Amino acid sequence: MAGKDDDVKVLGVVVSPFAIRVRIALNIKGVSYEYVEEDIFNKSELLLTSNPVHKKVPVLIHGGKPISESLVIVQYVDEVWAAAPSVLPADPYDRAVARFWAAYIDNNMFPGMAGVLFATTEEERAAKAEETLAALAQLEKAFAECAGGKAFFGGDTIGYVDLALGSNLHWFEALRRLFGVALLDAGKTPLLAAWAERFVEAEAAKGVVPDAAVAVELGKKLQARAAAASTAA
Amino acid sequence: MAGKDDDVKVLGVVVSPFAIRVRIALNIKGVSYEYVEEDIFNKSELLLTSNPVHKKVPVLIHGGKPISESLVIVQYVDEVWAAAPSVLPADPYDRAVARFWAAYIDNNMFPGMAGVLFATTEEERAAKAEETLAALAQLEKAFAECAGGKAFFGGDTIGYVDLALGSNLHWFEALRRLFGVALLDAGKTPLLAAWAERFVEAEAAKGVVPDAAVAVELGKKLQARAAAASTAA
Repeated sequence: MAGKDDDVKVLGVVVSPFAIRVRIALNIKGVSYEYVEEDIFNKSELLLTSNPVHKKVPVLIHGGKPISESLVIVQYVDEVWAAAPSVLPADPYDRAVARFWAAYIDNNMFPGMAGVLFATTEEERAAKAEETLAALAQLEKAFAECAGGKAFFGGDTIGYVDLALGSNLHWFEALRRLFGVALLDAGKTPLLAAWAERFVEAEAAKGVVPDAAVAVELGKKLQARAAAASTAA
Repeated sequence: MAGKDDDVKVLGVVVSPFAIRVRIALNIKGVSYEYVEEDIFNKSELLLTSNPVHKKVPVLIHGGKPISESLVIVQYVDEVWAAAPSVLPADPYDRAVARFWAAYIDNNMFPGMAGVLFATTEEERAAKAEETLAALAQLEKAFAECAGGKAFFGGDTIGYVDLALGSNLHWFEALRRLFGVALLDAGKTPLLAAWAERFVEAEAAKGVVPDAAVAVELGKKLQARAAAASTAA
């Protein structure tokens, strides 16, 4: 399994926020990599052996060594290709603030957003949407504090928190199309709404953040499976 | 609120694994700090204003600036007092492995352990104990790989993963006393059982990891509250 040091491979799923942030981080660093699309309904042997604990994408395989968990991978990328533009800020306090908000996105925003998709009643869906909107309201305040008038959480360029949040944008749009739920609403979170437009246009994100239609299709499949499982239970 | 740069304060709860790891990290670094015990049933104004998002311990206040989320704090401590013994390894791949397992402890081991305390039926308690044991079996394998025959996950001294897991040890013992559930079992996870004895004896951990009796007392209170809340619901 040992590979050359410059062998970089990403196992991902095109609509996975967690895979998307890894790919954008590699783009920021100017690292060439081979992208391998996984089928989440039929995972490859390479995925199962590379991430035996969670069996989930993304996995970064660098020089034959696998690394899992998206934020762990992003930090690894930032540390290995340290000479290229930084993802995390340089100052320890600013780094702590960035890590805090990235964790908040994964632990507090993401579960609400996923809940909108997997809700089995309209009541539950509305509650999950409220939860997501409350988290986004926190992130709107965080943006004002972190960006300080600049384009991104990370300042003039995409940084750690931008990656964490921006990798979910196609799902916001997909959930709007699927259920009419407006999560990223210019009326409620104007700074984030404007930031989102800048994010998808950024050079490193282009071609990585997928069209929402792809998320809509997978969303329908995932929802049908969840509904079938809940009926069977 | 601005303070001197060498002003270090920790808001904690004596049995909180998350606060304990922060205190041990500061001890490893030889940093003097003021410890403020919080009452989780009546949180201080300082806690509420220092961590307005989560309103939880631990908070590290350094030179007047608050930092929340235990693993974020531990990394901050490691970066600010960089000249003192390291908590995270130096090599990016080893750092990624350490971050992976620390996240695993918080996301996969801790919820099971907490579930043993808060279970409302014996069936549920047994299921949560099984879940915790499965996570500890993974960590037993991780220990063999990370420590490579040395005393700790971090090698010869306590590191990031040691802090993440070792800060829970008094709860394992408390749950044994409360429910007869053996989570850290020398028969099942002999490496971890021996490691635990070394951990609590390490200089940096002494006086920080509390006696299990304190966790037993708080455990009874928390359980009674949860039961009352579930009856009222």
